[in-house]
Amino acid sequence: MKRTSFAGWQCSVARAVDLLGDWWTPLVLRDAMYGIRRFDDFERSLGLSRNVLSQRLGRLVDEGMLAKVAYQERPVRYEYRLTDKGRDFFGVLAALMAWGDRWLAPDGPPITLHHTTCGHPTTAVVTCSECGEPLALRDVRVAERQQEPASVDDRHQ
Amino acid sequence: MKRTSFAGWQCSVARAVDLLGDWWTPLVLRDAMYGIRRFDDFERSLGLSRNVLSQRLGRLVDEGMLAKVAYQERPVRYEYRLTDKGRDFFGVLAALMAWGDRWLAPDGPPITLHHTTCGHPTTAVVTCSECGEPLALRDVRVAERQQEPASVDDRHQ
Repeated sequence: MKRTSFAGWQCSVARAVDLLGDWWTPLVLRDAMYGIRRFDDFERSLGLSRNVLSQRLGRLVDEGMLAKVAYQERPVRYEYRLTDKGRDFFGVLAALMAWGDRWLAPDGPPITLHHTTCGHPTTAVVTCSECGEPLALRDVRVAERQQEPASVDDRHQ
Repeated sequence: MKRTSFAGWQCSVARAVDLLGDWWTPLVLRDAMYGIRRFDDFERSLGLSRNVLSQRLGRLVDEGMLAKVAYQERPVRYEYRLTDKGRDFFGVLAALMAWGDRWLAPDGPPITLHHTTCGHPTTAVVTCSECGEPLALRDVRVAERQQEPASVDDRHQ
């Protein structure tokens, strides 16, 4: 089934969605952030077919989120390393994880993150770049939207 | 094509991925956060078929992220309002938008957010709940993972 492309949309959410392609992709990225680099290890962790995994890894390489690097010469063997762009996606996954911990984990968070900078268990908090306060929908307005459908209004609730 | 379910995974990223189902879902949520509530307005904004839109909205209602509320009695007309759980997803979308602005918007961010709390244009920054510093992958360790595949190691790069 051909998927609608969001790439041309004047919205970074839509563009990011288009790049990721499907929901296996964030899970591949998650595993890469856990330190997984090799095809067989991704396969074992995710349990998806080699064919699909190969496509997803290839897409992430094409998009510059993973780099395919030879780690052995004879025979040549490759591993997939996060690029700066891929590593920078950690914040999105951490925010997604924190939301999931709040709303989808009735038995408590299955995984805990530890922040080595401060030495404490940590939860991702999405904050304002200017004042540092948590960013809540009710306190945010869209200041500018170009070439968006006219039907979009800017009311918030 | 039947989709693999991630719901049972001991990982809030996987659970959240499972809940969202496909990439139209975050775009429906994005529109809901822009203030869209009515079926026809979602349809006009997203340009997806009424059938698919109806499924996505229904899924978000089932998952408790949107509430279907009658706003008119004769004839009965419904609108879709964000719940607390849905509204709380704003942070994830804001983090996704900020990442897309950094890596997928060579002409600059197409949309600017304004933080009414501090009165400045804002960008989402994902920070540590304890020390408030930005959360970077290199400074985070997984402190605990239960029932995860044994192949997952905890190296970071």
